[in-house]
Amino acid sequence: MLPLSFLSDYGHGDEFVGVCHGVVQRIAPGAVVIDVTHDIPRHDVRLGALSLQRAVPYLPQGVHIAVVDPGVGGERRAVAIRAADGNMFVGPDNGLLWPAAETCGGVVEAVDVGQSPHRLEPVSATFHGRDLFAPVAAHLALGAALGEAGRAMDPGTLHRLELPPPELSDGRIRTRVVAVDRFGNLELNVRSADMREAGFEIGDCLEVLSSRRTGSAVYARTFSDVGEREAVILEDSSGRIAVAVNQGSATGALGVGAEAELLLQPCDDH
Amino acid sequence: MLPLSFLSDYGHGDEFVGVCHGVVQRIAPGAVVIDVTHDIPRHDVRLGALSLQRAVPYLPQGVHIAVVDPGVGGERRAVAIRAADGNMFVGPDNGLLWPAAETCGGVVEAVDVGQSPHRLEPVSATFHGRDLFAPVAAHLALGAALGEAGRAMDPGTLHRLELPPPELSDGRIRTRVVAVDRFGNLELNVRSADMREAGFEIGDCLEVLSSRRTGSAVYARTFSDVGEREAVILEDSSGRIAVAVNQGSATGALGVGAEAELLLQPCDDH
Amino acid sequence: MLPLSFLSDYGHGDEFVGVCHGVVQRIAPGAVVIDVTHDIPRHDVRLGALSLQRAVPYLPQGVHIAVVDPGVGGERRAVAIRAADGNMFVGPDNGLLWPAAETCGGVVEAVDVGQSPHRLEPVSATFHGRDLFAPVAAHLALGAALGEAGRAMDPGTLHRLELPPPELSDGRIRTRVVAVDRFGNLELNVRSADMREAGFEIGDCLEVLSSRRTGSAVYARTFSDVGEREAVILEDSSGRIAVAVNQGSATGALGVGAEAELLLQPCDDH
Repeated sequence: MLPLSFLSDYGHGDEFVGVCHGVVQRIAPGAVVIDVTHDIPRHDVRLGALSLQRAVPYLPQGVHIAVVDPGVGGERRAVAIRAADGNMFVGPDNGLLWPAAETCGGVVEAVDVGQSPHRLEPVSATFHGRDLFAPVAAHLALGAALGEAGRAMDPGTLHRLELPPPELSDGRIRTRVVAVDRFGNLELNVRSADMREAGFEIGDCLEVLSSRRTGSAVYARTFSDVGEREAVILEDSSGRIAVAVNQGSATGALGVGAEAELLLQPCDDH
Repeated sequence: MLPLSFLSDYGHGDEFVGVCHGVVQRIAPGAVVIDVTHDIPRHDVRLGALSLQRAVPYLPQGVHIAVVDPGVGGERRAVAIRAADGNMFVGPDNGLLWPAAETCGGVVEAVDVGQSPHRLEPVSATFHGRDLFAPVAAHLALGAALGEAGRAMDPGTLHRLELPPPELSDGRIRTRVVAVDRFGNLELNVRSADMREAGFEIGDCLEVLSSRRTGSAVYARTFSDVGEREAVILEDSSGRIAVAVNQGSATGALGVGAEAELLLQPCDDH
Repeated sequence: MLPLSFLSDYGHGDEFVGVCHGVVQRIAPGAVVIDVTHDIPRHDVRLGALSLQRAVPYLPQGVHIAVVDPGVGGERRAVAIRAADGNMFVGPDNGLLWPAAETCGGVVEAVDVGQSPHRLEPVSATFHGRDLFAPVAAHLALGAALGEAGRAMDPGTLHRLELPPPELSDGRIRTRVVAVDRFGNLELNVRSADMREAGFEIGDCLEVLSSRRTGSAVYARTFSDVGEREAVILEDSSGRIAVAVNQGSATGALGVGAEAELLLQPCDDH
């Protein structure tokens, strides 16, 4: 039996997460189901997609349920897909699964599970996690063929979700905040290679300009390379460049949050 | 070994939930334990009971631990009960287990586990989840007889918890908000059959009157049948009628919460 | 395979906890991993240490991962240790593991796992839970020898964390609040034996003096020995004396929180 993972915006205040686990265990008794997170901000497909993308290289190969689904009950498709490396993903076709599937080599097979033979009848209009995604995933974990979980569809028609690349020019990087973690660290869609291309080196002082405020930060390897409450720019654990404050909050210090535009440039010498 | 589930108001800020899992695993190594939810508002027996009732049809048949227990250490009984369909429930005798057991066909056997041979000595005055309910449930999951988990008692003496039925008259429904979920949806103790009896049909415009405000909503099948931020009345995933706002909060829009009285009536034509 | 437990300050808003579970399952498929809690306040090593210490007697013997790690990426050591009773602990060497290990009979073997052969390369500067602690713990759960998980070190050089003992004089106890739970109960580093030594008996009225306010409370066995909203002093489920308010909050009533100094003395007769 394949292991499963489960990510959603259901939160923990209701029984939604537990109910989906129940559905999986009724179909696939003893299955291992890893809760990736259920505290994605409500309906934030982009943050859910990024979280799943960051997690999937560290999850056991198997079946990944993801539900951040503002269009539930409407016309968006419900899908199950298989990536080139064998990982399978089950959820709404709204871009949520896309970045993780790309990380796994891209989608090689896709089915529309809206009328899946594995679904729980009657399928509610509002809780497809329980009625569609969990039972489909549990059957896939048991070894059911993806092709029998729904109606075959062209992977090329899947909803995509892509992040705008950073703009590099004149030794500056213009980019957007991709995500803010609970510590207030600002994750950017910038890689170490981009930093090198812009001419930034570990140890450099960089100015960080938001629409609200300008700050400076040291480009360093880790938090403790700067003093407490000092700003630092570093490669975070997902391989993206982040703006952070050692034992403090960068989102607070710069007054900006997710999707804010930032400009990184060398500190003035004067 | 039977699977277990666990619902409580312990929250996640302390080690309480983890400790109960530890007690179960020490007694029944490898047991599957599904966390239904641990974020029931503190001491809210009614919400805990409704959450367990909604969840239980989707959980694997087994042993269900539930702890929302304002009377812990006092005179309320600690019980383990068996429902007609074979599901067992362990927790305080304060009504928490009652609706779920009714959903499972009603209670057919009950024991008082306050002095259970399975208890962890010394039983603390404040943490019966750890010292009574988890060990009793773990032994039941291992196959111990319910009759040996405590002192037999008359199921007819169990504390009951019943919701007031809606009042239907003159094409109106007067009811109370049963629960509010994290999305601000207001769940009512009203079924689709009640709506039909009141003469309401899918597509109707209904007025929703609270003590604070009057709003109107479309009686529809799903959220996306109305526009963003528009109010909708629909059958929710537990089979109850709910007042909701598409991508918004009904509790915010109507200014009311759990237990508020609401009146549903046809919108005026003028 | 040994069971594992996992405590951290990662919270649930990100995928950090799920990723560590993924790492464990990739190495040790099917391992039981109990989440003790992940809502330790960020960087609060002392609260994390106390929570782990309270939990460990109720967890199955095995491997315990604990990560509250303000010094991650800096010079603090990463360690795996074995206690006299066989329990193993993996985490930062900042005192977090110390009280739990003492409860398990004290440390008998310790290794520095900073360069462990079990680590995930490249080890990030900020996420040692994923790259060091989870993989080391998973290998230990599989049966790998502790001595092969890292470089042997003298247990006597481990960072210790000890709580100041209460001061008893003239029938008074001066002490500090060790922890505040989600119900607002104030846990003190005082045992029932200290209460007896101070001459306090169950049923006594005691004055509780903080720097902010003075209140009185009954020294009782359980919450329901006093009325609703009344203050009570009792032995909590971890064996420590706590100041609480029945169905209310002691931290609110006394206006103090963790680390506050309190004085307990008999109520005046006048």
